[in-house]
Amino acid sequence: MDAHTLLPPGIAPTQAATRPRLAVHRLPMAHPGDLSALAALFDQGAIEPAQVVAVIGKTEGNGGVNDFTRGYFTQTLMSLLAARLGRPAAELLRELPCILSGGTEGVLSPHYVVFARSGRPAADAAAGPGPGALAIGTAVSAPLPAQHVGRWAQVASVAGAVREAMRGSGIARAEDVAFVQVKCPCVTAARAQAAAAAGHTVLTADSGRSMAAARAAGAFGVAIALGELPDDPALEAAMLLDFERFSRRASISSGVEVEANEVIVLGHSAAWEGTLRMACAPMRDALDIGAVAEALRPLGMNAAPQLSAADAARVAAVFVKCEPDRRGHVRGARHTMLDDTDINAQRHIRGAVGGMVAGVLGDARIFVSGGAEHQGPDGGGLVAVIAHAA
Amino acid sequence: MDAHTLLPPGIAPTQAATRPRLAVHRLPMAHPGDLSALAALFDQGAIEPAQVVAVIGKTEGNGGVNDFTRGYFTQTLMSLLAARLGRPAAELLRELPCILSGGTEGVLSPHYVVFARSGRPAADAAAGPGPGALAIGTAVSAPLPAQHVGRWAQVASVAGAVREAMRGSGIARAEDVAFVQVKCPCVTAARAQAAAAAGHTVLTADSGRSMAAARAAGAFGVAIALGELPDDPALEAAMLLDFERFSRRASISSGVEVEANEVIVLGHSAAWEGTLRMACAPMRDALDIGAVAEALRPLGMNAAPQLSAADAARVAAVFVKCEPDRRGHVRGARHTMLDDTDINAQRHIRGAVGGMVAGVLGDARIFVSGGAEHQGPDGGGLVAVIAHAA
Amino acid sequence: MDAHTLLPPGIAPTQAATRPRLAVHRLPMAHPGDLSALAALFDQGAIEPAQVVAVIGKTEGNGGVNDFTRGYFTQTLMSLLAARLGRPAAELLRELPCILSGGTEGVLSPHYVVFARSGRPAADAAAGPGPGALAIGTAVSAPLPAQHVGRWAQVASVAGAVREAMRGSGIARAEDVAFVQVKCPCVTAARAQAAAAAGHTVLTADSGRSMAAARAAGAFGVAIALGELPDDPALEAAMLLDFERFSRRASISSGVEVEANEVIVLGHSAAWEGTLRMACAPMRDALDIGAVAEALRPLGMNAAPQLSAADAARVAAVFVKCEPDRRGHVRGARHTMLDDTDINAQRHIRGAVGGMVAGVLGDARIFVSGGAEHQGPDGGGLVAVIAHAA
Amino acid sequence: MDAHTLLPPGIAPTQAATRPRLAVHRLPMAHPGDLSALAALFDQGAIEPAQVVAVIGKTEGNGGVNDFTRGYFTQTLMSLLAARLGRPAAELLRELPCILSGGTEGVLSPHYVVFARSGRPAADAAAGPGPGALAIGTAVSAPLPAQHVGRWAQVASVAGAVREAMRGSGIARAEDVAFVQVKCPCVTAARAQAAAAAGHTVLTADSGRSMAAARAAGAFGVAIALGELPDDPALEAAMLLDFERFSRRASISSGVEVEANEVIVLGHSAAWEGTLRMACAPMRDALDIGAVAEALRPLGMNAAPQLSAADAARVAAVFVKCEPDRRGHVRGARHTMLDDTDINAQRHIRGAVGGMVAGVLGDARIFVSGGAEHQGPDGGGLVAVIAHAA
Repeated sequence: MDAHTLLPPGIAPTQAATRPRLAVHRLPMAHPGDLSALAALFDQGAIEPAQVVAVIGKTEGNGGVNDFTRGYFTQTLMSLLAARLGRPAAELLRELPCILSGGTEGVLSPHYVVFARSGRPAADAAAGPGPGALAIGTAVSAPLPAQHVGRWAQVASVAGAVREAMRGSGIARAEDVAFVQVKCPCVTAARAQAAAAAGHTVLTADSGRSMAAARAAGAFGVAIALGELPDDPALEAAMLLDFERFSRRASISSGVEVEANEVIVLGHSAAWEGTLRMACAPMRDALDIGAVAEALRPLGMNAAPQLSAADAARVAAVFVKCEPDRRGHVRGARHTMLDDTDINAQRHIRGAVGGMVAGVLGDARIFVSGGAEHQGPDGGGLVAVIAHAA
Repeated sequence: MDAHTLLPPGIAPTQAATRPRLAVHRLPMAHPGDLSALAALFDQGAIEPAQVVAVIGKTEGNGGVNDFTRGYFTQTLMSLLAARLGRPAAELLRELPCILSGGTEGVLSPHYVVFARSGRPAADAAAGPGPGALAIGTAVSAPLPAQHVGRWAQVASVAGAVREAMRGSGIARAEDVAFVQVKCPCVTAARAQAAAAAGHTVLTADSGRSMAAARAAGAFGVAIALGELPDDPALEAAMLLDFERFSRRASISSGVEVEANEVIVLGHSAAWEGTLRMACAPMRDALDIGAVAEALRPLGMNAAPQLSAADAARVAAVFVKCEPDRRGHVRGARHTMLDDTDINAQRHIRGAVGGMVAGVLGDARIFVSGGAEHQGPDGGGLVAVIAHAA
Repeated sequence: MDAHTLLPPGIAPTQAATRPRLAVHRLPMAHPGDLSALAALFDQGAIEPAQVVAVIGKTEGNGGVNDFTRGYFTQTLMSLLAARLGRPAAELLRELPCILSGGTEGVLSPHYVVFARSGRPAADAAAGPGPGALAIGTAVSAPLPAQHVGRWAQVASVAGAVREAMRGSGIARAEDVAFVQVKCPCVTAARAQAAAAAGHTVLTADSGRSMAAARAAGAFGVAIALGELPDDPALEAAMLLDFERFSRRASISSGVEVEANEVIVLGHSAAWEGTLRMACAPMRDALDIGAVAEALRPLGMNAAPQLSAADAARVAAVFVKCEPDRRGHVRGARHTMLDDTDINAQRHIRGAVGGMVAGVLGDARIFVSGGAEHQGPDGGGLVAVIAHAA
Repeated sequence: MDAHTLLPPGIAPTQAATRPRLAVHRLPMAHPGDLSALAALFDQGAIEPAQVVAVIGKTEGNGGVNDFTRGYFTQTLMSLLAARLGRPAAELLRELPCILSGGTEGVLSPHYVVFARSGRPAADAAAGPGPGALAIGTAVSAPLPAQHVGRWAQVASVAGAVREAMRGSGIARAEDVAFVQVKCPCVTAARAQAAAAAGHTVLTADSGRSMAAARAAGAFGVAIALGELPDDPALEAAMLLDFERFSRRASISSGVEVEANEVIVLGHSAAWEGTLRMACAPMRDALDIGAVAEALRPLGMNAAPQLSAADAARVAAVFVKCEPDRRGHVRGARHTMLDDTDINAQRHIRGAVGGMVAGVLGDARIFVSGGAEHQGPDGGGLVAVIAHAA
């Protein structure tokens, strides 16, 4: 899917820009069915509905298999867009990546980031290279059968979608990609039953484990598309086993509410204009506060220990992946996340790393997603920041 | 109780020091009944059992009414000391403050801090003032009836215990007190029934709320003893209502496993010797990473953004109080801690603030206790650090 | 609201029945946004969309303040009906009671009960009394301000809505009412802030407690309308205090997703026809398995110990209210529901009583709602069964 | 271990009975460290400490890996017995089975069942067969290395311990065994690390899954010892896969607090005297209330629908195993236990089945243990009752 296909045919872009331009809106929600902030932007004319190319959000569920806040938000978003665009919601659902991570543990605040694209399609943009700006491309794969979840078929599906998204974005080279966000389907008890009835074997019928396997496959898919790992099916054996193999720019979520791999690619392109820039840094463990500084530095920001109000105002969105260290220790000290029957380990780690990153930023509107298998160093993850140039 | 009464009568201190000296040991535990690290220090002669004057620990329960990890640890500790000292465990239990906070959310690591005092009793110490060092005093109040929990009777009981602990410590002035840790009893369903049967009315039979009320009473007790608030029973009406009134140095826990108010006072005294120093800073909200820097500064340490390995090695213990903002927002962004039926709000905030402080320190062995009512600014709390002089 | 106003004006009932008739459909859902079973009934012509007068369902959230499965289901239901009826969803939302209880603990199965009414409006029905059948009436009150929650204003609002629903139902006398289901709004942190900003004082800003207060007010409202309690504002002081005062036929839920009191009255009326009958029995405590037998007996069914397959096939729906005994004991044995920081007490009791009732019925599709304050005996609740005559 | 070795050498049994006799005491606890009810029985002379041969209890933790209520109770019990018997607690811990299941969901009441044996050792008992009575035998295996957990080595260890316990009990034939309770060690993150460091591979490092594997191994061990399954190592492949293979009399718990397999065998023996009898029935699913009736019938009791007070007074103890159906349905209705990130599936099922059984018995002091893999029919479990003859 090329992002600009969302422009209704025959409707010219409202701005006479010669280059495409990305706008990023970070919006609050009162509950997972509250899209009033986006509706208000539509009403004010700040965004045109047809400009919305992707949404990434943090809803207040538990982030697990039975987190229905993601489905609720998605249904509400698609209803809103369908009403404004005069298109069927089911059609939008298949085209528009809406990637949600459930779980606002600790200080984390429910919010969503709307990516809106204006200006000409990338293909028609002025020939000569400009100073460039942050660009976006999106793609949604074909629906993924349950028996493919966590296997090489899913890796290949994600890699293909990343390449398609890059093509549509005008991001010229893999090294220009700053960050790739993917949402992958997982196996539920019901889907496992259905696959079994159809004669297929799922990798695991345990929904929690299937989410981990799906995230691993997504990370490998991104890594292959970006040239971080070779495109070799033998690598399937490394998934969830060899954590030295990872992408430095992939952020993968998995959930019951999607049936296809949804991909959002963000990176810099000379064909785009605007003031937005993005940087991403790997986190080596859950205490790696230095990774936040490292992600802020290329954007010309320094937190000492917290961003100044002026710098904080430049920040448009923050994305974090993290993981409860599977070896049971953080810098030699035992943690209890993996042996806790009361609170899911991913909820634990999101709250802790979210608190740390929010402290540096001085802002609780941080997208923090657990399950960072092969997304950044083992036991760590990564942190990415979108900000306006100073 | 004067801390040095723990020295068995007739047994001279083993060190010929002319001044009392405090040692602080931060020890790991494999589970709440694991005191093997302390037993090893006894076996090695690093600490004499009679030198132990207080223990503050973080166990891996839920921190709520039904958190039995605190009772389990306490029983194990008292058994160990009883066996080594040849004294009844029940007697030690009444004398030795063992203050535990349950809940090691996120990266927080189960650990305990043993305060061991060697050298002469403060009263016998060399007359002339020296450069001074960190000093300790402890006290345990009379058992507190359930009907006094959260009321002025508890405030007075705590204030009296703080004053008694100061007298025994050689800390000359209230302004020399760096930090006061208190553990207060609360009301359980069973205790409420018993009090009602005896014709008494408890403030609340809801155990969660009684823990909050007990913490408020403890904070007021400390504030009065330190001169931060006037000793006026009319202040009872301000408890849990007027959060502009708070102590800047009080850290209060509450739990079902204690029946009396247990107090540990830490501060600087010219009568003590050693390299330990302590500093405490108020946190204005859950994102106040600057408070950590403020607590480190008087100790000659700077985190940029994390402590250096050399400085981290100087840190002996860290104590944090924090609170889910009761107004439902942190710096304007909605948080979900107070409306969450799945995870207790105190568990949320401990994980988040613990993650932030651990990130700055580069160490997950942080004592973080929720329920900071009147302990630091409303919606915030405080952070205290013990470190060796450079 | 009179239930038959849902018939679009000018459209005559499709059936030439001389009396109104109630149909009850108990339908499964795959997730809270899955209304496909109802859509299929519409497609098959088994129900006409305009015949739907009320829905009662059990969704798989946590049943607490942050349970968004109720809102998700409601939005999906109203979208479906709006599309089929050609009416705005917002308008249907104000007219059609959709009362959901979150929480399918243990064996409980997510399901919803659709009440569909066919035949003539009650007012036009054949004059002479017939043998009668189960009848339904519904009403939705005006929106209830947050400051009225849990107070007499809410009691009066609910009582008025019950009377209005009875009037529309053709149920002649209060004693003919078998069961009243109510959904009441509660106070959230956000609503409390808004009310305070407008100069109002809410009974409690603690959302969990406000839900309890709202349920108490709902129960008193029903009891007054049915003549079980006198209509005396002085009774406000008895709410959540004097549990000897209760309704034997009220089932009240409370949640964030409604803003008005929604009422469904079920009872027997000579003006209605059909095979459905209903019975309701009080439960004296959480072990009162005899109450289930008592509710089955008037319907001609006997569980020994479980319903036969033939009798189970006659059952159309089952509704249960229950409560964790606030005194901390069940028949002298201590329970741990009230002191549990990990699992909400209402989740505990729903799972236990649901397991017991499902065992007797041999069916896990039981609507079990916690929070039975003043709905049946203290520490117990009530159980109601709709079944076809043998 | 032969149970009567607990009699201190040289101390003759206080009763001149010619046959051994079992007494069963079901005792309440106020918290997991409260053994005061047993201490009181000792003080009253109702039980001699040396007569205690086994304890089975239900503590109020979460029943998972981080449930420390079991260790806390065990430590307290062994301390009490050590003090009364003048023997080291560590030695008692190796000899005396203390089998605890954490989790008192719903109405379940924390309690423990003390098995006390008086009279002569079985071997010395009067030669001629009498009418017989309930008999007990116990054994504790050698410590089980982490790498054996869930494998055939554990099956063999459990089978051996069951045979040893039978030999010491005087229960003549496998068919006379009514019930076998086993507690098996599992793998924790720490133990997995240790095993890996020693060059061993554990079946799974996921502690939750290792508990399931340990329970399966325990069930196979019992089934082999009782002749329910052949003693064939090829059966290892059937564990956790072929659920048609199960024991009808095995109840297995697993937890972090034990290092060896602990076994309690209960059955009828002509060599014993007394009024106690036991019966056990398989449950085919979580709604099988008929299984409770089936277990009561051989004991001459009929619940219609609840036991009479007279019959309830005859009941000495009740033990239940149950399981959330792994296929996601109970009698065709979807359940949500397996996909719930907030509440562990075993907690769900214990609450539901516990509620059902407690309803029939009219008593909440029911031992209900989740994780019934190969213990009764797939998706069901079993229920066992000890009662005095009428």
